[in-house]
Amino acid sequence: MCFPVVEAFRGGPSLIRVVGHRGARGILPENSMIGFEFAMSTGAHLLEFDVVLTGDDVPVITHNHRLHAPTFREPGGLFLQGKEPKVASLTWAEMQAFEIGRIDGTSDYGQRFLDQAQLDGVHVPRLLDLLRLVAQPQYGAAQLMLELKSDPDFAHDADYRKRIVETVVGEVRSTGLSARTLLHSFDWKLLAECQAQAPDIPTSFLTQLPGNADEVGEDTSKSISPDFSGRERQIPDMVREAGGKLWCPYVHDVTPVDIERAKKLGLCIAVWTVNELADIDRMIDLEIDAIVSDYPGRVQRRLSDRGFSWISEAASAGHQSPAEQAATTPAAAKV
Amino acid sequence: MCFPVVEAFRGGPSLIRVVGHRGARGILPENSMIGFEFAMSTGAHLLEFDVVLTGDDVPVITHNHRLHAPTFREPGGLFLQGKEPKVASLTWAEMQAFEIGRIDGTSDYGQRFLDQAQLDGVHVPRLLDLLRLVAQPQYGAAQLMLELKSDPDFAHDADYRKRIVETVVGEVRSTGLSARTLLHSFDWKLLAECQAQAPDIPTSFLTQLPGNADEVGEDTSKSISPDFSGRERQIPDMVREAGGKLWCPYVHDVTPVDIERAKKLGLCIAVWTVNELADIDRMIDLEIDAIVSDYPGRVQRRLSDRGFSWISEAASAGHQSPAEQAATTPAAAKV
Repeated sequence: MCFPVVEAFRGGPSLIRVVGHRGARGILPENSMIGFEFAMSTGAHLLEFDVVLTGDDVPVITHNHRLHAPTFREPGGLFLQGKEPKVASLTWAEMQAFEIGRIDGTSDYGQRFLDQAQLDGVHVPRLLDLLRLVAQPQYGAAQLMLELKSDPDFAHDADYRKRIVETVVGEVRSTGLSARTLLHSFDWKLLAECQAQAPDIPTSFLTQLPGNADEVGEDTSKSISPDFSGRERQIPDMVREAGGKLWCPYVHDVTPVDIERAKKLGLCIAVWTVNELADIDRMIDLEIDAIVSDYPGRVQRRLSDRGFSWISEAASAGHQSPAEQAATTPAAAKV
Repeated sequence: MCFPVVEAFRGGPSLIRVVGHRGARGILPENSMIGFEFAMSTGAHLLEFDVVLTGDDVPVITHNHRLHAPTFREPGGLFLQGKEPKVASLTWAEMQAFEIGRIDGTSDYGQRFLDQAQLDGVHVPRLLDLLRLVAQPQYGAAQLMLELKSDPDFAHDADYRKRIVETVVGEVRSTGLSARTLLHSFDWKLLAECQAQAPDIPTSFLTQLPGNADEVGEDTSKSISPDFSGRERQIPDMVREAGGKLWCPYVHDVTPVDIERAKKLGLCIAVWTVNELADIDRMIDLEIDAIVSDYPGRVQRRLSDRGFSWISEAASAGHQSPAEQAATTPAAAKV
């Protein structure tokens, strides 16, 4: 089965895709509508973002399963103090009281993003807000790498998994975007639930090895991800066997041997989060399919210098549907 | 006489303005419509840009008086080869053949902007395109720092000066933007012509000392600027005497003594081009009025960390005209 959305993430000769991580976190507040619009306006049509379920079962776009103190401000304008409340403990209406347009420069997290524009009046979007935006004809090139975030407290609850997948897939279908969406997660049980409920929507498997440190100031993936430490086979084989179409390894885990193996298996390889020039160059040299970055412009700049494109000729001509584009890209010929 | 546009560039207690240089050159192609829209979307409503006259007297937004090889691509997609043609030798229609959405990474100029998104289908805008955009109600906060670029071959031609000022001011007036525009230049003769033709539009005086090097890969200002090397008085006094309302010195020329003097004279001080964190900090410490930067988000980020705002309370409330905003800003009380 050929999935047009998978082909939209697949590279090829002189072609590596650019995926805007949480919109374009280096430039604009993460997981914000203005960030998504910016990424798309610059030709980074492949959007990565994170979905968590509120207490009243509204899928919202935010990274952590608790409100993230370095980016959430209370109504008075101060960054969140004390224990971070869980998204699952708040209603959607309650979440709207918080602003997310600035970053706390006194936090370790804030020190990572020194170029990010600071905005007021920005709130956590619902998944539905983004879906409705990209369903508009002018955003026809947009493709969604929709990351389902598991609350570790519920990760082993099959009913919870069923409910979050039903809710999210329901919204994707209701907006007509199932052919332009990847279901993406660190939680392989959740991905199995996605495959069971929505076999027509391809799954994308995030991995991070236990030996490498987490990114500073973020929820760890390790509590909800498989523990690869005792693995007897290569991760690409495990992803393939689990039914994954994309493999999305952490930038510091990537090895030429694993990339080679993933290519042999026909997996599409998207690497996260690639921000430093040396890492961008390494990914280009490894000929991965897609680079997930907080700085999509920086990746475009480097690709352009090295003679690579990030949009297939057919797509840049702008006269074809995503399915037609997929069928005519040089990369598609490989599959 | 109080000019609302001057007050929109004036800082105050815990208030320093952010001016997007050529839109936001660090993030998006310089002097492009998408760059201007981006800057405004992030709350950098003060736009600096450059105007040159084509051979058929169309004011266009581009920096150099010749097409700039590191950013101009010919119809085949290659960066301009050979001698750069003059803007004054081309018609507006001829200029549309060139694309300006990428930067040549093999050039010294290109090496300065490694995060810039790379776009296709972007062309030199006319001044009128930007004026018509910001005349729309949703861009009511926009204020224009309109730099008039002199072709050195015509700099001593009074008829040329008369014609460029007439044409540009005519377009500003026809779009109803004379109260939101500064006429800004290195060419003091041209600024005198502006004052003669449009005494209601304030003038902004750019300066660069002969001792400091030009920015890499750009037209020098020195051929059309006064030579300050033998000056007997401070530059702020010269600007004031020449009728300037703003003084816009080069970041590497700025001294505390000159800033102090400019403040005493009531000049509004906007410094160009402030991109490095250390320079941003130095400008904050000097309490200048406005920071002109290729990275307006970076400046916002730093101002936010240091407890500064870049939008007056009145303006951020969004319920007042620029004139009302100017009248109620803390800074305006100083004048």
